[in-house]
Amino acid sequence: FQDVNHMVIFGFGFFLTFLKRYGFSSTGFNLLITVLGVQCSVLIEDLIALLLQKRNEDGLTRITKAAVSMTAVVISTGTVLGKANPVQLILMAVVEIIVFHMSRWINTTFLEIPDSISMMHVHLFGAYFGLAVSSHFSEPSPRTEKNASTPKSDLLSMLGTLFLWVFWPSFNSVLFKNDKSKAVGNTYFALAVSAVTAFTLSLLTTKDGKFRVTDIHSAVLAGGVTVGYAAHSIEYPWIAMILGLLASGITILGSYCLQRCLHPALKIHDTSGVHFTFGLPGVLGALAQVVLLVIKNWTNLQSLGYLVMTYIGAFCLTISVALITGFITGLILNLKLFKTVPVSKYFEDQFYWEVSF
Amino acid sequence: FQDVNHMVIFGFGFFLTFLKRYGFSSTGFNLLITVLGVQCSVLIEDLIALLLQKRNEDGLTRITKAAVSMTAVVISTGTVLGKANPVQLILMAVVEIIVFHMSRWINTTFLEIPDSISMMHVHLFGAYFGLAVSSHFSEPSPRTEKNASTPKSDLLSMLGTLFLWVFWPSFNSVLFKNDKSKAVGNTYFALAVSAVTAFTLSLLTTKDGKFRVTDIHSAVLAGGVTVGYAAHSIEYPWIAMILGLLASGITILGSYCLQRCLHPALKIHDTSGVHFTFGLPGVLGALAQVVLLVIKNWTNLQSLGYLVMTYIGAFCLTISVALITGFITGLILNLKLFKTVPVSKYFEDQFYWEVSF
Amino acid sequence: FQDVNHMVIFGFGFFLTFLKRYGFSSTGFNLLITVLGVQCSVLIEDLIALLLQKRNEDGLTRITKAAVSMTAVVISTGTVLGKANPVQLILMAVVEIIVFHMSRWINTTFLEIPDSISMMHVHLFGAYFGLAVSSHFSEPSPRTEKNASTPKSDLLSMLGTLFLWVFWPSFNSVLFKNDKSKAVGNTYFALAVSAVTAFTLSLLTTKDGKFRVTDIHSAVLAGGVTVGYAAHSIEYPWIAMILGLLASGITILGSYCLQRCLHPALKIHDTSGVHFTFGLPGVLGALAQVVLLVIKNWTNLQSLGYLVMTYIGAFCLTISVALITGFITGLILNLKLFKTVPVSKYFEDQFYWEVSF
Repeated sequence: FQDVNHMVIFGFGFFLTFLKRYGFSSTGFNLLITVLGVQCSVLIEDLIALLLQKRNEDGLTRITKAAVSMTAVVISTGTVLGKANPVQLILMAVVEIIVFHMSRWINTTFLEIPDSISMMHVHLFGAYFGLAVSSHFSEPSPRTEKNASTPKSDLLSMLGTLFLWVFWPSFNSVLFKNDKSKAVGNTYFALAVSAVTAFTLSLLTTKDGKFRVTDIHSAVLAGGVTVGYAAHSIEYPWIAMILGLLASGITILGSYCLQRCLHPALKIHDTSGVHFTFGLPGVLGALAQVVLLVIKNWTNLQSLGYLVMTYIGAFCLTISVALITGFITGLILNLKLFKTVPVSKYFEDQFYWEVSF
Repeated sequence: FQDVNHMVIFGFGFFLTFLKRYGFSSTGFNLLITVLGVQCSVLIEDLIALLLQKRNEDGLTRITKAAVSMTAVVISTGTVLGKANPVQLILMAVVEIIVFHMSRWINTTFLEIPDSISMMHVHLFGAYFGLAVSSHFSEPSPRTEKNASTPKSDLLSMLGTLFLWVFWPSFNSVLFKNDKSKAVGNTYFALAVSAVTAFTLSLLTTKDGKFRVTDIHSAVLAGGVTVGYAAHSIEYPWIAMILGLLASGITILGSYCLQRCLHPALKIHDTSGVHFTFGLPGVLGALAQVVLLVIKNWTNLQSLGYLVMTYIGAFCLTISVALITGFITGLILNLKLFKTVPVSKYFEDQFYWEVSF
Repeated sequence: FQDVNHMVIFGFGFFLTFLKRYGFSSTGFNLLITVLGVQCSVLIEDLIALLLQKRNEDGLTRITKAAVSMTAVVISTGTVLGKANPVQLILMAVVEIIVFHMSRWINTTFLEIPDSISMMHVHLFGAYFGLAVSSHFSEPSPRTEKNASTPKSDLLSMLGTLFLWVFWPSFNSVLFKNDKSKAVGNTYFALAVSAVTAFTLSLLTTKDGKFRVTDIHSAVLAGGVTVGYAAHSIEYPWIAMILGLLASGITILGSYCLQRCLHPALKIHDTSGVHFTFGLPGVLGALAQVVLLVIKNWTNLQSLGYLVMTYIGAFCLTISVALITGFITGLILNLKLFKTVPVSKYFEDQFYWEVSF
């Protein structure tokens, strides 16, 4: 439990500190939203348990599950980082956590997806919910330089990335009772290959053979996201390693295509590259899981068809729910009521904190 | 064990780095004092065990207990941060650890307080001992700006606060053999509510609706301190949550009243706000524990009276011992013998470290 | 397992960030080399197991062992920090990990040293391999100031040192099945005395009674390195404490003698002082282990002679293999083929990273 707690609070807190004037807000609001969300999430679980007359789970398991769910919210905040004010963030967190619980409840009840698998949709849900929300926030003016990072803030953000990296195996294995050590091992190998691929591809895609910090940030984690769905069921480490390789590749290629073509076309501005860091590897992981299922059960074609349909159904459902509710939430958040931040005040700590700069 | 070790070394080490020119000293002296104190503490335990012919405890348990006791010393150093030199700090640490052991020994032997409860007086003892000591150190001149923090040092200090925050549940549960998971859950909820309250109150009490960094620093931890006494015995999470709310409230309100009225009147200068970060929540926690005891045992009035008396007695005893011995220690530390630091050299790393600035 | 993982990734990553313009490279390359090396190491273990028809160990144990072996490589990179480019580092890592496995295999097979003891030669091997490699890299010109540290980078490096400090007990105990808690306790005491000695000696050896940051960095860890060989077998904490004292003393004295006499004479430039941080305490630890063995088994002189011979043999073998293969590796790395870094570009992040400075 403690490991997941550390990962969500530190890891994401410092992962998001790369903006040069937004360190306090990144870290502070992350703490605020996480603790609010965990309480909210525990409440919802209690409500559902009350309504359905289910027996309640042990206290710590509930907090752990709530912390894992919060990852979705934290990922979503990455897309509007520096653009939304705390009230908007809190509202978004509450809405998102409710919708995510609903989506999970539909998955486990109607599609009979195992609980731990439906939980792994958390990255996917977070990324696409965030993207849909961010489409309602106006883009920062291109002249402003506040959107940039400094070496110092990049170094702190690297610290956050390393935190996420080392705690990811715990994160992927925390929900499994049995196969824990297998899940840890597979995640470790996927992350390791991912890191190596990230460095290699970053070197190959820059003109003068240097490393690009943002590539490293996003791509070293891709393997962990992808392997999450199947971490407990992969028999041979090399399968995990191939997934890590593909994930890292898709992230770096995706970061080019998306930032140059898709995002400007859709007028989406994704501050911390959540789409390719968590979204694309999540999609890959969900597909990989289906492929692995097919390979495993190909002798029994009847049940296989049904199984594949439910997994793909759960995947599509999660993404559609995320996109639709994210879009609606974005609309609501931009009502005058919430005193939206003017574009000129984007990415400013001074707007929220009493600090001498 | 490792968790408590991490918390004391990192958490407090970086919690105290907020002074802009005092980062090295904060971190370095914290390490020095902690390791000295742990050795000293283990030695004392051995001596007591030898004198009383008790059977010795297992090695790791002894180190863990010693590390928990050290929290008192580390909290006390917060009050004289930047004002005392290493020799003074070491002497203070040794005296304080001896007195704290004595105070605990009286509590457990004569008042028959359980060992784990008497250990939780550690925050209370540390805060009031430190305050009594600091009353002997002259205040920094108001013109000097070295007493201030920079965004960079504040960010590192935020890192320390987050460390303390995530390790607090482990700290509160480390001494309990059974109810471990209950203690972790209750502490988590208290801390979570505490963090939310800290943000809310900080927003409400500043003029232009901004967050104040120092408020966040101190108030997010208040819930953990308060709930420490009763973490293992609270049945419902909402009780822990109310305690967290009250603790955070008392800290922020306390920080105003104390810094404006009480401290200038008593000529106390408390560099890192130890009084309201650890002192007041500790008092609240001790009182809350008595209230909870009364509610639990109100059927059995006879034994209740006795129980309440011993708990209040232990509380008063701890504070008085802390204040009296702290006052005497402060007197001794300011003898010419120890080459006290001149006021103009307060809060300077350069005075102790060979670094190029 | 997770503890060792954290220690290698963070601890060493940030331990090496003290160069003012080399933070990214220190942290990033450390991650890259570690993950590559762990995969390489697991592969080699598999190959050996395949060749010798041994039964394979459990997945996580293999990764843990691989991570411990990687410490040798990470220590070696410390000597050429800022002077080697990534391709050179990767080649060095692969060669070193293969040679280290061979050396360990000879030790355990022919000299019948227990597996966990032969693993503790990791510091020794890493330090002397690194020194032999670094003798082939030209020294930085004395005028350049890029080799210096700033308070900010020193503070981050202090963070890394603290990480290493708190995770060292886990590191020393991870390979032991039984005596785990004894190993943790002994390592803790050795580290604690080491830290106190480091502060004291640093104070005594500087002219004006200040602390020197580099001394603290290297000497607080010396006790952990020294006690590693015997951590599980020491019966009384005071033996561990004496080892910690000696280790810290030898490190600080060594840092003077080596940097003034030996290194200039041999034209070795050791960027992060690996020789006295890991090399000398390792030698001391290996010798202390032999002395402890003699004391323990002095009644049985026959078997004692054989035992002492094998331990000293293993020690000499490890150092000779490290020096010889390190020397050869250094030669290979400086072939034109690898585009060696010009001396003027030493210690520059900009040479490898696309960051705006």
